[in-house]
Amino acid sequence: MIDPMSDQSSSRRYAVVGTGALGGYYGACLQRAGFDVHFLLNRDYEVVAQQGLIIQSIQGDFKLPQVQAYPTTEAMPSCDVILIALKAVHNAVLPAILPPLLQPQSIVLVLQNGLGGEQYVASLIGSERVMGGLCFISSNKIGPGHIHHLDYGLINLADYGDGYQAQGLTHPMQMIASDFEAAGIPVQLSPDLFSARWQKLVWNIPFNGLSVILNATTDQMMSNPMTRSLIEAVMQEVAHAAVGCGAIVPDTVIPDLLVKTEQMVSYRTSMKIDYELGRPLEVEAILGFPLKIAHQQGISLPRIQTLYHLLSYLDSSNRRSHPHST
Amino acid sequence: MIDPMSDQSSSRRYAVVGTGALGGYYGACLQRAGFDVHFLLNRDYEVVAQQGLIIQSIQGDFKLPQVQAYPTTEAMPSCDVILIALKAVHNAVLPAILPPLLQPQSIVLVLQNGLGGEQYVASLIGSERVMGGLCFISSNKIGPGHIHHLDYGLINLADYGDGYQAQGLTHPMQMIASDFEAAGIPVQLSPDLFSARWQKLVWNIPFNGLSVILNATTDQMMSNPMTRSLIEAVMQEVAHAAVGCGAIVPDTVIPDLLVKTEQMVSYRTSMKIDYELGRPLEVEAILGFPLKIAHQQGISLPRIQTLYHLLSYLDSSNRRSHPHST
Repeated sequence: MIDPMSDQSSSRRYAVVGTGALGGYYGACLQRAGFDVHFLLNRDYEVVAQQGLIIQSIQGDFKLPQVQAYPTTEAMPSCDVILIALKAVHNAVLPAILPPLLQPQSIVLVLQNGLGGEQYVASLIGSERVMGGLCFISSNKIGPGHIHHLDYGLINLADYGDGYQAQGLTHPMQMIASDFEAAGIPVQLSPDLFSARWQKLVWNIPFNGLSVILNATTDQMMSNPMTRSLIEAVMQEVAHAAVGCGAIVPDTVIPDLLVKTEQMVSYRTSMKIDYELGRPLEVEAILGFPLKIAHQQGISLPRIQTLYHLLSYLDSSNRRSHPHST
Repeated sequence: MIDPMSDQSSSRRYAVVGTGALGGYYGACLQRAGFDVHFLLNRDYEVVAQQGLIIQSIQGDFKLPQVQAYPTTEAMPSCDVILIALKAVHNAVLPAILPPLLQPQSIVLVLQNGLGGEQYVASLIGSERVMGGLCFISSNKIGPGHIHHLDYGLINLADYGDGYQAQGLTHPMQMIASDFEAAGIPVQLSPDLFSARWQKLVWNIPFNGLSVILNATTDQMMSNPMTRSLIEAVMQEVAHAAVGCGAIVPDTVIPDLLVKTEQMVSYRTSMKIDYELGRPLEVEAILGFPLKIAHQQGISLPRIQTLYHLLSYLDSSNRRSHPHST
């Protein structure tokens, strides 16, 4: 990993690619802490350029009446750190929009669900400048530039290496972590992005998938013995795939996730929210890519593949009935 | 098998338990052909007692202004043949309602979907008097006593033996077949009820199950490559289970069913119709019982079990939202 950042750089310049529930919240926290943040927006550009960002948060509400907002990356400066906070379904735009943001030592931090985002970005810019961030946050965009941060907020940061090889704890990730902590964003550092992403999939595959198929919240799925049993069986399959692909998944992961989910309030997953709004679902990042690499290892995952096929169908029929959502 | 029927009995007496889409149609055909048919009804009793049955059929419409209708079996005569045309979800009523209909040599013919109905009836009255009929028919009840027969109509008749042992072609089934043929109902005779029921499950498990989960018709599922692939994978699992449980499923069954389904008009499965009307789903007969006996043989069926858990949840949440449907 190149080390683009000297510790002296007290105010690194950040780009936020995708100023929605996630990028809007984290970017606003960074700006509030004094960092130089540049926000890329799409449909919300006009509103945010005029009114800034409004953050309603369990950590305390705040407003940023003025932000540096852009409708395209051409007008943006190159940045030290580029936060990719688009949904993975929109990654096909990255080859066109990333180049103006890059300087020789920029770090691109992929804040996406599922697996494969970092590998894709590395295919565009090389693996040495790519990091991954797993966001454990409950946050919704409730209007243009208006973000509601409901709960949690931790980012698990890890460095990316070719083919998801573990990179240990690197200097650049420590620099970014210290920026985030200065901005009030809790951070964990992980030496092994691949294992971290698979461990998150142990939750995301069953709960995101089943919440859409069953039109159900987490508590509804946990309290029905049939779905509870299915959730555990799918979790076991994810863990089996993970280990077969070379990730580390401690035996405590599944029981811990079940207990934590039982203790959570009734929760609508991000995929369920996307589905209700007629947005494309992150089926490939959360199920398709993990299935593909497990398949390459000769691992059969019949339950996950069943969910994948069901969700692919539901995604396409849902988009036909909401033709204008993206 | 007892042989209750002499060939001289030119007009056997039939009871129809459940005068809906199936029992109403077949019972009306038998009455029209001169058989002595007695119809058990529930909510539709008053209307049918006064107005009889109206059959709208691709084979030709007809009306029976007068039928022998009953609100309970107490008032009914004992019968030579008792057609069980209730949905399997209502089988718990049979111990109470069957006895008045039985004479020492009555045959009880179970016209239900899935697997397990004959075994349950045999547990009540002994296996020697039980037969099974697989109905390949598209028929709906569109009002009290008003049946719309849309397509097909074949009944595959087979004798039941303890534990679904194959019984060959028996004399009683040939007698019933000749009655049905006299009534214009096409009949096939099968020497092996267990194999016949498993072969029908090769279609019913994927199509009934997925039609509810995906809110889709047969043509929608067949034309999407993801669901088409899932259908084939589930069919393979059903065939694997069937063979492991001792049934015969020729290699041609799956390709033949796929071709036939492609040639069908857009079709809403019976389970999807039940779901839309808020009725209980035949999840146990179509998925639960087959899973149970496969499990007893040590056969793992992850895809079918996934569908089973999904459908069980959807069934219970659907009934909560339609509390008055049965």
